Amino acid sequence: MGKKAKTAITPTRGDDFAQWYQQVIKAADMAENSPVRGCMIIKPYGFSLWENMQRVFDDIIKEHGVQNAYFPLLIPLSFISREADHVDGFAKECAVVTHHRLEFGEKGLVPAGKLEDPYVIRPTSETIIGDAMARWIQSYRDLPLKLNQWCNVMRWEMRTRMFLRTSEFLWQEGHNAFEDAKSAREDSLKMLESYRIFAQDYLALPVFTGEKTKDERFPGADATYTIEAIMQDGKALQAGTSHYLGQNFAKSIGIKFQNRNGDEEFAYTTSWGISTRLIGGMIMAHGDDDGMIMPSRVAPQQIIIIPVVKNIGEGGKIIEFAKKVADKLKKQGLRAHVDIRDMRTPDKIWNSIKKGVPLRVEIGNKEFENSDVTFIRRDIGRDSKETISSDAFITRAHSIIDEIHNFMLDRAKSFRDDKTSEGSSVDDIDEFFKSGNIGLIRVPTTILNDENLEKVMKEYSLSTRCMPFEDEGQKVLIGKAY
Amino acid sequence: MGKKAKTAITPTRGDDFAQWYQQVIKAADMAENSPVRGCMIIKPYGFSLWENMQRVFDDIIKEHGVQNAYFPLLIPLSFISREADHVDGFAKECAVVTHHRLEFGEKGLVPAGKLEDPYVIRPTSETIIGDAMARWIQSYRDLPLKLNQWCNVMRWEMRTRMFLRTSEFLWQEGHNAFEDAKSAREDSLKMLESYRIFAQDYLALPVFTGEKTKDERFPGADATYTIEAIMQDGKALQAGTSHYLGQNFAKSIGIKFQNRNGDEEFAYTTSWGISTRLIGGMIMAHGDDDGMIMPSRVAPQQIIIIPVVKNIGEGGKIIEFAKKVADKLKKQGLRAHVDIRDMRTPDKIWNSIKKGVPLRVEIGNKEFENSDVTFIRRDIGRDSKETISSDAFITRAHSIIDEIHNFMLDRAKSFRDDKTSEGSSVDDIDEFFKSGNIGLIRVPTTILNDENLEKVMKEYSLSTRCMPFEDEGQKVLIGKAY
Repeated sequence: MGKKAKTAITPTRGDDFAQWYQQVIKAADMAENSPVRGCMIIKPYGFSLWENMQRVFDDIIKEHGVQNAYFPLLIPLSFISREADHVDGFAKECAVVTHHRLEFGEKGLVPAGKLEDPYVIRPTSETIIGDAMARWIQSYRDLPLKLNQWCNVMRWEMRTRMFLRTSEFLWQEGHNAFEDAKSAREDSLKMLESYRIFAQDYLALPVFTGEKTKDERFPGADATYTIEAIMQDGKALQAGTSHYLGQNFAKSIGIKFQNRNGDEEFAYTTSWGISTRLIGGMIMAHGDDDGMIMPSRVAPQQIIIIPVVKNIGEGGKIIEFAKKVADKLKKQGLRAHVDIRDMRTPDKIWNSIKKGVPLRVEIGNKEFENSDVTFIRRDIGRDSKETISSDAFITRAHSIIDEIHNFMLDRAKSFRDDKTSEGSSVDDIDEFFKSGNIGLIRVPTTILNDENLEKVMKEYSLSTRCMPFEDEGQKVLIGKAY
Repeated sequence: MGKKAKTAITPTRGDDFAQWYQQVIKAADMAENSPVRGCMIIKPYGFSLWENMQRVFDDIIKEHGVQNAYFPLLIPLSFISREADHVDGFAKECAVVTHHRLEFGEKGLVPAGKLEDPYVIRPTSETIIGDAMARWIQSYRDLPLKLNQWCNVMRWEMRTRMFLRTSEFLWQEGHNAFEDAKSAREDSLKMLESYRIFAQDYLALPVFTGEKTKDERFPGADATYTIEAIMQDGKALQAGTSHYLGQNFAKSIGIKFQNRNGDEEFAYTTSWGISTRLIGGMIMAHGDDDGMIMPSRVAPQQIIIIPVVKNIGEGGKIIEFAKKVADKLKKQGLRAHVDIRDMRTPDKIWNSIKKGVPLRVEIGNKEFENSDVTFIRRDIGRDSKETISSDAFITRAHSIIDEIHNFMLDRAKSFRDDKTSEGSSVDDIDEFFKSGNIGLIRVPTTILNDENLEKVMKEYSLSTRCMPFEDEGQKVLIGKAY
């Protein structure tokens, strides 16, 4: 293996991480900016990834007794303003619907039919779902109530970035209600744990789990729990949050029930969400200078088979053999695909690399004659190249997919451990970032009271990411973040 | 079987069909009106039905080579106005976003941050998806391009009705592009056929397939194809449409490609959609005076097992047996559920009837001792009651589900045939409705030129439903409609 002549993505991660990110998305054909300010188009390859993620996580939450439902897109202003912190948190970024038709004016189409009461497009649905809960919950027998919706939400962002921060994004928002504080808090921790498992076991993303400091809480929450991932530029990414809302929303919305003693009481609620932002996290945690590397368990295509023929029209037997192999893999529940496009083989290979297909299979004349296949893992590259009998490959395919997953997770874990430093004072934080280090620094929570903290945080654009559970609330992780 | 003392739903279909419809939805706990004008909340039981429908139909369209993607919710005014007929068709019912934040004014929250260019919430996405297609399609090699999104859309309706007509609804919208008129038209007919198959084979809804008359076309289409179902009050329901758009949208949006001769040409596009409206159709086609009857293949719960015990706490052995039966049914891929709620058995039974669970299984002491089950089909009622060994039931369960489907489809077909009359003139139409008949009347298309038609159509609030394919464009179906 000599020095690589060139990479598929320009610039490389080292040269310009932000530009590299945009180029990876483009090269993998996952998404693009739309003509609508701050909104993206999720293209088929990117959307297929989201569909796979949805399917897996939907099963996880249904196991947990959560029911899917659908609530209105529009929220009356009177609802959004019910919880004081909540409206403060979202008022600055709400898309507002003020008219209900269009008319042809002198200069073309203009809004008409002014609404007496405007609506906002949901930035999140605590208030409108809470309003339904207030009707649906009468007695402790109606609790717990666990609802979820997969939907679009809108937060008018000034600086947007595909997947990471867009005005409209797709997510799931769960809203649960309980009869006591303990069950509610425990459940919000359980949902966080389900995020941790999902990120780790399906997206190969190792995450810190912990509680947000007060300043970073969801507007209206008593506690916000988070999973925090680390990107290859050392910045943190909040990858999912679960909020314990106490009785705040129940009181402001009126979610009351008759408890076991026959007394009227306010319910204890939680909310929890993950979004298409996770896709941005996967790109920045796993991608390399040749493009995307898809986590193997949720990849849109897990295995791509490339018939190595001079001319696709003359590759009849090889293509037939490739299709048979693909069919056998599909029967095992693997997403396998034969690339029969009329394109040069090297272009197909680069295409599959940039798209991050976990496992590439090449079948040329020699392989065909011996009923063999040659495969290359995307996570490792050409060093993983192996030629084995097609039957052996079909038998091993599932475990190779698992090996890729484990390798990607381990690699990301090593990176994270490597980029997480320990400190004990504000000076340590200052020193860490002044020296040009990237990554997170973990310090005792006592420094939160240090008067010099703010200055240092501002200087390096830092934020507290979470107080990791593993430190039992004694420490806080600090770093730059998306 | 004596005369039924009472029905679960008041009023009955015969007494007040519109009220009956609302009450069925309420009794089955499928949906409710929301505090947002014209918008509904789809409750878990109703949403689960939609999820099952989505899963089935999504597989059908993916077989057809369609790829899912996601496009922005908001559409710039300049886009919506590109196609003249299109904007005329939708301008009167668009929700318009004019501001991007909220401020606290004297009287509370008010819209602020006025947008220079307002947006509408998508009533449909031909223009915004067409705009993307214009970027993505360069050559005939990029065609056909078949895209679909499952999403929410909004059309500001003045008179709304749950599932049938709501300001916001959920749907799939497919948008395909082709290199010639013939492929485009054929494909739009293929998508219509997939709707017909879906309605018939999964929803037990027999439908007429045909082309809409010119007046009833989608705004901007060259042809609109439709599936039309008939409800138990004799009214038609447009249950799905597929539009051949010719080059209309391609020309106004600029979807150009280099054709096989090297010339630049506009693409030929289609669009096709079905929505949560179909659920309303299923209620009105299948429901009876005891409530909903779920089509057995998409029912949220296909089989409910009710342990017939005095007290759920003391029914240990019976419940255990019931759960074993349920587990075996689940292993066969059936949605089976044991009702272990602390409720009276008759209440549970009525509950399952109102919710329309296709197959109810009762297990009491006698059944338990003999390892038997007693089952009752919802479509037929108590006449279908049968006691057989639990093993035999488990073996037969799948075919009973199919039998229920076939019975429901046949019943709906008989009703439809019974309520579809033939006529040859405008006088026949007049006579038919004057005599108080319900249903559709099929007449030669030549009557469309009859000057008396409009008067008769107005008098009875009729509309042309479609020119059925089976009549090769020679006849038109006329009736009242939702």
